[in-house]
Amino acid sequence: MPGALSSAALDQLFRTARTYNEWTDQPVDEHTVHEIYELLKWGPTSANSCPARFVWVRSAEGKARLAGLAMEANRPKILAAPLTVIIGHDLDFPDTMPRLFPARGEMMRQYFRQPGNAEVTAMRNGTLQGAYLMIAARALGLDCGPMSGFDNAGVDRAFFAGTRIVSNFICCLGYGKPGTPWPRNPRLSFEEAGRFA
Amino acid sequence: MPGALSSAALDQLFRTARTYNEWTDQPVDEHTVHEIYELLKWGPTSANSCPARFVWVRSAEGKARLAGLAMEANRPKILAAPLTVIIGHDLDFPDTMPRLFPARGEMMRQYFRQPGNAEVTAMRNGTLQGAYLMIAARALGLDCGPMSGFDNAGVDRAFFAGTRIVSNFICCLGYGKPGTPWPRNPRLSFEEAGRFA
Repeated sequence: MPGALSSAALDQLFRTARTYNEWTDQPVDEHTVHEIYELLKWGPTSANSCPARFVWVRSAEGKARLAGLAMEANRPKILAAPLTVIIGHDLDFPDTMPRLFPARGEMMRQYFRQPGNAEVTAMRNGTLQGAYLMIAARALGLDCGPMSGFDNAGVDRAFFAGTRIVSNFICCLGYGKPGTPWPRNPRLSFEEAGRFA
Repeated sequence: MPGALSSAALDQLFRTARTYNEWTDQPVDEHTVHEIYELLKWGPTSANSCPARFVWVRSAEGKARLAGLAMEANRPKILAAPLTVIIGHDLDFPDTMPRLFPARGEMMRQYFRQPGNAEVTAMRNGTLQGAYLMIAARALGLDCGPMSGFDNAGVDRAFFAGTRIVSNFICCLGYGKPGTPWPRNPRLSFEEAGRFA
């Protein structure tokens, strides 16, 4: 059985990883984006529902469009980043269940089609997949700049028109400029965030 | 700048990691639970809001109580696992903002206190933290068995009474019994799950 990853790996994933807003000139190429997806796709979701959908915004036009729908403080971050991914989730994901969960696909399709079930399942599991995306990017040596300050309805119209995909959060991707993040904020202690039972 | 983690590390985190329902006899000790938290706490959340709260259910009584509130198919999984963590999020998290985000804590507290803001922020960011928990556990050599099939309101009454913490999902933790998971289900291709823009 595997043991713990190396201390350097734990640093890279969690302990010294930071949210970046400034980036080196190193681009994020198409191959790297595929590598991120080929890792994140394996992360667990409820009944393998995989409801997240991704728009990898890398063109000047796409960045300008997305930046125009973001809170003012987030606009320069989007324009400066090599790439910003929109993490959304598809409310029509139940239709993929027969393919993604062959053992009980039709049963799960009907379950997720019941009122309210698609929404909460897509939000929960699409968000999990967004976290897998960020950790996968870090595991590949990239840095992340996640944000939720933008006009979700506007982004849905601009990037998901004609679908039932809704935006969740967005995340800049690139190679963070060393030394640029603010000093790290405190975290809750183990006891403040939980307890044994 | 760091490069990609080793292929073995990427396997352990994503590519060969699986959801387990059966476990070896190896216990999950208190020190390991603290180690999981000390990694996951560094994962990014909106304005460092850290809304997730955790109940690490390890006692026989706690397991029986939680299992009694789970879907029938999930009961034996909870009873068999060394430990099952309830991942919830605190709708009162805005009150922690002055401490967690000193630079603009009072402003963020007021923003998150506006109707509807706490709920969506807690759900999104608490879920991200749940994913960080699973990846942190895998990074430490453990396996996960996440589930959302349980009575959320009942779990809230049983484990979060007198608070505004609500349950999100639960996750068994331990060392997976080799060879026990079902064959792996398919995933969406890169193109099915997204596009460049």
